[in-house]
Amino acid sequence: MTLIMYERVGADGRRPSPFSWRIRYALALKGIEPEFRHVRFADVETIRGLSGQHFVPIVTDGDRVIHDSWNIACYLEDRFSDRPSLFAGAGGRGLARLVNHWSDNTLGAAIRRLIAADFILCLDPGDRAYYRSSREAAFGSTLEEYCADRPRWLAEFAAVIAPLERTLAEQAYLTGTSPGYADYIVFSVFQYARLGCPDEFLDEGTALWKWRTGLVQAFDGDRRDALAMRPAQ
Amino acid sequence: MTLIMYERVGADGRRPSPFSWRIRYALALKGIEPEFRHVRFADVETIRGLSGQHFVPIVTDGDRVIHDSWNIACYLEDRFSDRPSLFAGAGGRGLARLVNHWSDNTLGAAIRRLIAADFILCLDPGDRAYYRSSREAAFGSTLEEYCADRPRWLAEFAAVIAPLERTLAEQAYLTGTSPGYADYIVFSVFQYARLGCPDEFLDEGTALWKWRTGLVQAFDGDRRDALAMRPAQ
Repeated sequence: MTLIMYERVGADGRRPSPFSWRIRYALALKGIEPEFRHVRFADVETIRGLSGQHFVPIVTDGDRVIHDSWNIACYLEDRFSDRPSLFAGAGGRGLARLVNHWSDNTLGAAIRRLIAADFILCLDPGDRAYYRSSREAAFGSTLEEYCADRPRWLAEFAAVIAPLERTLAEQAYLTGTSPGYADYIVFSVFQYARLGCPDEFLDEGTALWKWRTGLVQAFDGDRRDALAMRPAQ
Repeated sequence: MTLIMYERVGADGRRPSPFSWRIRYALALKGIEPEFRHVRFADVETIRGLSGQHFVPIVTDGDRVIHDSWNIACYLEDRFSDRPSLFAGAGGRGLARLVNHWSDNTLGAAIRRLIAADFILCLDPGDRAYYRSSREAAFGSTLEEYCADRPRWLAEFAAVIAPLERTLAEQAYLTGTSPGYADYIVFSVFQYARLGCPDEFLDEGTALWKWRTGLVQAFDGDRRDALAMRPAQ
């Protein structure tokens, strides 16, 4: 039975969703090649019909429909428990959940302040009006106003990533000596930044930069990298 | 061979150091009762003579002298590997290191903005001048100026702890279904806040409040709690 992964696709086949990236890496660690099906922002009703909610990624495994990236990761871990582990033990699973919430809120919010105004250009042209109107309603400002005070948001980003840099200066991966799902969660937010904005936010040669570079190249890196690079406008 | 733990002691026998709290809990989880020896801020030279550096806690195990709380935790885990685990697997150890850096920098810094001006009163009177001069030099301001913009620092604290609340609303401990060293690290920073300031920073009934309350009561809770409560001034 082939698993099917529904994921958002942007301009020129790019993958704008951090939630897709972490599941793509989790599937690759498990050695699973799913069938990928693409959805756009405008496909809300299709997604809702499949899963009862409107977020992707969604993974189906026969009759099972799993949504929410954390649920998908746990499903893959338990369903394919004989394959390499995403969590490396019960403690790794527990703390990966904290890393997940921290990444989506603290780290993701810090990066969104840097890229939200540029990010629209990596979306399919047909999705851009939806992105602008939904995000501007959520932010209570235009995308450009949301990102305007760049020195402030760069300083906040530097403070947020400091614990990552300290940890990766001491060990190869957040999960320890080999990468795990917590690495993919954090990495996925940096993929979102790479795709969403032409600026480089990490200093070359730092431990965090080296870690990200290694993960970009993992699992058939060149092909994956093409999906993460910002398209020429 | 009895292990010896050197730790900072404050006014009326209180324990002001978050680094001591996390090691006290780690020892208790391992079922180890060390001999405790007390040091004050002014005992810098004694500590340096023992360990070549001036921070406590320090743990000795026969001829071995281990300093830095993370190193002590890893030493205890490996030396007493037949006892309950502090990390619950390799992934738990890897991510606990990230939690450690996040707690000491991000969480600790947010709490320090709330308590630094009050904290001096939980120290032994003989240590207060040293605390004030060393901290004011580090902060570049008086303790009172450092904490002055309270609405700002309360809002920052609320944002910092949000991932903890979300995680603990879903699972009993950060490490998963049972507490681990990552729980003790984070808890130790809240002990430091409880001791350092009469204000309560957690809302009663939240998942984080319940988790902290449970950990206060763990391991002979009443006796430990007395060491963590702010003394009457």
